[in-house]
Amino acid sequence: MTTMTDATAEDRLTGLGIRLPDAPAPFGAYVPAVQTGQLLFLSGMLATAGHAVPSPGIVGKSLDVAAGREAAHVAAVNALALVKKQLGSLNRVSRVVRLGVYVAATSEFTEHATVADAASELLRDVFGEHTMSSRLVFGVASLPFGSPVELELVLEVKAD
Amino acid sequence: MTTMTDATAEDRLTGLGIRLPDAPAPFGAYVPAVQTGQLLFLSGMLATAGHAVPSPGIVGKSLDVAAGREAAHVAAVNALALVKKQLGSLNRVSRVVRLGVYVAATSEFTEHATVADAASELLRDVFGEHTMSSRLVFGVASLPFGSPVELELVLEVKAD
Amino acid sequence: MTTMTDATAEDRLTGLGIRLPDAPAPFGAYVPAVQTGQLLFLSGMLATAGHAVPSPGIVGKSLDVAAGREAAHVAAVNALALVKKQLGSLNRVSRVVRLGVYVAATSEFTEHATVADAASELLRDVFGEHTMSSRLVFGVASLPFGSPVELELVLEVKAD
Repeated sequence: MTTMTDATAEDRLTGLGIRLPDAPAPFGAYVPAVQTGQLLFLSGMLATAGHAVPSPGIVGKSLDVAAGREAAHVAAVNALALVKKQLGSLNRVSRVVRLGVYVAATSEFTEHATVADAASELLRDVFGEHTMSSRLVFGVASLPFGSPVELELVLEVKAD
Repeated sequence: MTTMTDATAEDRLTGLGIRLPDAPAPFGAYVPAVQTGQLLFLSGMLATAGHAVPSPGIVGKSLDVAAGREAAHVAAVNALALVKKQLGSLNRVSRVVRLGVYVAATSEFTEHATVADAASELLRDVFGEHTMSSRLVFGVASLPFGSPVELELVLEVKAD
Repeated sequence: MTTMTDATAEDRLTGLGIRLPDAPAPFGAYVPAVQTGQLLFLSGMLATAGHAVPSPGIVGKSLDVAAGREAAHVAAVNALALVKKQLGSLNRVSRVVRLGVYVAATSEFTEHATVADAASELLRDVFGEHTMSSRLVFGVASLPFGSPVELELVLEVKAD
């Protein structure tokens, strides 16, 4: 029997009812991810569907906090899709080392942490409470293709 | 006798007369720091006192360079408090690998390096001239809770 | 005979006809680069010539995409000069792990990837298609000394 404690990341993803999309393809002369030693650096993940950003905008101006959270969730699901494609299984992740959440925001905006939590909570729910990441969050002037949120992930991969 | 040369980071901190506050608590679903191998990634450090930002603002607009430097200093002291809590002693740091200084600034602002130096100088004075960091500095649209400055630190920890 | 396949980074740089300038000097209390293990973290590279930014501006406002690409190219050449100074030879780089491209941009700007590609393409042309980096790109409010672009590089260095 699988308990909550020994559930794997793949088990938890299934339990959440999340189906992963195709992993995002690069928008230029770079690759989706690079592994060095046990660290896997993902390229910036946007709130894309296919090769477009369906709901662009600036949080605090054209978008509210709830829309920002939705964008962070979409970007985090894209990140999971990419990790699965790179490693074959989410179970190969031993730790989310760094999560960067960059929110396209106005100069008056202050609720970046609430937006970022939508990504953090998904990663916690999939990889487990014991592998919660360090986090860096700030408001940027604008993001590629008008994405409201961009995520940076550095993951620790289990040794084979 | 302890000379300047063989003084430790803890010695230097004492010599500077700096008393560390409680280490900042997270503002969401993340942890204060993650170590992988010998690298310790700190979560973004803000100019907080307790769980609030007492002097929020945008540098170049509501705040001048001196106020930006003060915020950078406060954030750096918070980072030292967190490192001490994580590692038990500042003496376990062998190197500040990366310092990121992200300044909430206007589009016209150009003196980011002067603001950032307030953090860099404190880290140099504590960890020593021989462990000065690499640095990344830019002006962001806004920061969580209106903090004028956010710091990113990646540290190398001595092997046990 | 040297074919395209076994050409080194130094060979390719020569083939491109690029002469490296002096490596940029720091603008404060930090060092140009720090190596930890096999990872080399470069300090932020700006579109500087000597210790100044000859063509400052904000992309989408005072500068167009072509000017942004030129700034990204200049910053990438500076990064190559710094890598050569740090390692003695570009051939010691085994991988560009992370390229961050931070563009001083308006809130309406969406073509960050096109600007960033000017840096990515140069790194690919020098280090080779097989060592393309992961990438993180966003628009910031402003950059030190008015630089239109800043680059972050984390490189993997060959073991001796």
